[in-house]
Amino acid sequence: MSERVVTMEKVVNLCKRRGFVFPSSEIYGGLISCYDYGPLGVELKRNVKEAWWRDTVSARPDVVGLDCSILMHPRVWEASGHVTNFNDPMVDCKLCKGRFRADQLEHASCPRKPSKRPGECEGELTDVRSFNLMFKTHMGPVEDSAAAVYMRPETAQGIFVNFINVVNSARAKPPFGIAQTGKSFRNEITPGNFLFRTREFEQMELEYFVKPGEDDAWYEYWQNRRMQWYTDYGIKPENLRLRAHADDELAHYAKGCADVEYNFPIGWQELEGIANRTDFDLKQHIEHSGKDLSFFDAASKERYVPYVIEPSAGADRGTLAFLVDAYDEDGPDDDRRTVLRLHPSLAPTKVAVFPLMRKAGMPEKAQEVAAMLRPLVTTAYDETRAIGRRYRRQDEVGTPLGVTVDHQTLDDDTVTLRNRDSMEQQRVAINALPALVTEKVAPPVCTTPLAPTA
Amino acid sequence: MSERVVTMEKVVNLCKRRGFVFPSSEIYGGLISCYDYGPLGVELKRNVKEAWWRDTVSARPDVVGLDCSILMHPRVWEASGHVTNFNDPMVDCKLCKGRFRADQLEHASCPRKPSKRPGECEGELTDVRSFNLMFKTHMGPVEDSAAAVYMRPETAQGIFVNFINVVNSARAKPPFGIAQTGKSFRNEITPGNFLFRTREFEQMELEYFVKPGEDDAWYEYWQNRRMQWYTDYGIKPENLRLRAHADDELAHYAKGCADVEYNFPIGWQELEGIANRTDFDLKQHIEHSGKDLSFFDAASKERYVPYVIEPSAGADRGTLAFLVDAYDEDGPDDDRRTVLRLHPSLAPTKVAVFPLMRKAGMPEKAQEVAAMLRPLVTTAYDETRAIGRRYRRQDEVGTPLGVTVDHQTLDDDTVTLRNRDSMEQQRVAINALPALVTEKVAPPVCTTPLAPTA
Repeated sequence: MSERVVTMEKVVNLCKRRGFVFPSSEIYGGLISCYDYGPLGVELKRNVKEAWWRDTVSARPDVVGLDCSILMHPRVWEASGHVTNFNDPMVDCKLCKGRFRADQLEHASCPRKPSKRPGECEGELTDVRSFNLMFKTHMGPVEDSAAAVYMRPETAQGIFVNFINVVNSARAKPPFGIAQTGKSFRNEITPGNFLFRTREFEQMELEYFVKPGEDDAWYEYWQNRRMQWYTDYGIKPENLRLRAHADDELAHYAKGCADVEYNFPIGWQELEGIANRTDFDLKQHIEHSGKDLSFFDAASKERYVPYVIEPSAGADRGTLAFLVDAYDEDGPDDDRRTVLRLHPSLAPTKVAVFPLMRKAGMPEKAQEVAAMLRPLVTTAYDETRAIGRRYRRQDEVGTPLGVTVDHQTLDDDTVTLRNRDSMEQQRVAINALPALVTEKVAPPVCTTPLAPTA
Repeated sequence: MSERVVTMEKVVNLCKRRGFVFPSSEIYGGLISCYDYGPLGVELKRNVKEAWWRDTVSARPDVVGLDCSILMHPRVWEASGHVTNFNDPMVDCKLCKGRFRADQLEHASCPRKPSKRPGECEGELTDVRSFNLMFKTHMGPVEDSAAAVYMRPETAQGIFVNFINVVNSARAKPPFGIAQTGKSFRNEITPGNFLFRTREFEQMELEYFVKPGEDDAWYEYWQNRRMQWYTDYGIKPENLRLRAHADDELAHYAKGCADVEYNFPIGWQELEGIANRTDFDLKQHIEHSGKDLSFFDAASKERYVPYVIEPSAGADRGTLAFLVDAYDEDGPDDDRRTVLRLHPSLAPTKVAVFPLMRKAGMPEKAQEVAAMLRPLVTTAYDETRAIGRRYRRQDEVGTPLGVTVDHQTLDDDTVTLRNRDSMEQQRVAINALPALVTEKVAPPVCTTPLAPTA
């Protein structure tokens, strides 16, 4: 693995061919930048989200979950600043009628001369105008401005507006976090790079509320924790880096922000942002709603508006990074093998069961073994073509374990258990499989302490 | 439990107070018919969806999953008939300017006389017009009709348009199913009844493709299977019924349709529809896309367009039904106990750990026990107030198991394990807890065969 063999094209092709990701509405020509997860992709993405929820919510005593609606009150987006500030600068060409991002003119193409740059049609450009990135729709039977609502551009605001509801119902005290996964929508002018930048995408966001003064320690904690999470699930450390924002990149309300970046074939790109958002969001909602969103600490008799540390990750980007990082080819040039070296806990299928041949009762026995394992882990069964081909098909989609029923099985109830990465096989008793398989696909144990160490 | 003590009001109050469900954007006055799942609600709904996915996808060799985008190509909705037919009949009042559903005028209220019926303001009503229930938005930088897209009103069409992609990539052969969970949106004129009818909602849909001629047997199979699923997870059989649609209720393309109905406090209402949709959907997409969506059976050399059986369930309605059905009050009148008798596998919190008193090292020991259990099952820890109060708090949210650390624990490493329903306690060793707790909260074993029996 000295040299990276992965390209975006290889990953996109594998995704389509094997059912990880399809272009949305493909039979109608597709819908730009929208994708559907196929049978293997949906399992992979579910596993990525489950890994995040398990480590961020379930395994921690200090974090609870939330699941807010996508359609929220429009005043939420006034308070958050999205109505005023969530814009891209646009220009129109008066001749070709094309609309372009003013800050990315060199990447745009002119409708009259598709391969050329705007201006080459010699049209005059309008002044720069703001284009809001929120998708707008109308709720209720009357389509007027009073009924306009937005599809949320982020899940985070749902957490802030529920802060007091959660504090009261869950009796939560800082430091504590509220976590949410879910779809968000941004009408990006220039989406692209497969799953990387799409107009509809899924987020995994944690808002971790702390007492002001404790924010620096927790900001550092969550940076380390989130980096560790990606490597726990198999991302190679050399393909991951933490990049602190320069002062002139920082949003005006942020005290600090750092991006977890992954070395995609298209270059280093953001997987997740971790920000110290101070008390900005809660104070905005206090001002706009007139509600008291401060926290009263009964022990110390102090009242304060908590600071918040926000690790905000993309589920689709994360899924793409796990796919790209797992992609490998090995073997001699005349017998190359494509293998997805996914962490077993993320692999869409955990075990594939094969009869060595389609005779002598092997298929029936193999189906029995598959039926035994299926309630425990996602299990495939395949009896077509030569066994070598079948192993390769599973290697290509990252199935970590292969179980083969052969002649000996019919005598002694043992099978071979094949390891995807080493391709080594061991002989094991069928009745040992449930425990063995379950153990081999278990998620990694999180070793990060639950709080910053002094 | 001879008499039902549950009312919608009691459930709504419990949901708000304990963090199951909050009104969306509540600090801004709420957004009609949109709700957010709080810390306990998100876990309950996750468990409901997980139970569906486990039994419908993971445990079956003949069903694969899919996860499609919410924004799809607009031609999908032309082919499906939603653009033309997914309408409610509306009338406007020329005097009060109110807009009402023409077929529900008796339930409407006049804006000028909020407590009265339309017509009572003596305004003249317009002719009946069609109002399409799809939410419309615009994709890309130009807000014109060419860029109009809809938020999907159902997840099912995403499955139909991916039929060939799934067949090819997963090598699927009828009978087989494609399953999907996800948000859908319908701009209902009259939403209401808490989670029951909302404009944003989550579906759990299965499209099960069969050879024409085998459809009747599979239609019956899925009706039985889906009824069984609800009772497996604890719905009382007397609160559940299957209601076949009368001929004049059937959609023109449906050969049969039956609703799984639950006896809510507001009356019998649909949880799920199970329909034999014949080859209607695939044929519509064949016609509109020009693509061949037929299946070729290599063994029999037959080519056909499969029929589809569709069990289509609401995740929010299901969650509400499990909540309502689990709600109970028991004990003497002067010491009533509210208890959610949720199936343990659905309960948001599986086990709560308590120190009997806040002294003598009991809290520390109890926190150790909680930390041991937390990686296995969702675990709460509570040391506030009297132990009886703490038990009641957990009963009220359906936590099936309580573990109490007391004086004896410090001597012999045993604890009491309390059962939510019987309130009985047994003494068990701490090191026996992981296996015991895991076993007691395990999901039910599905006993339905995988196919219709002859």
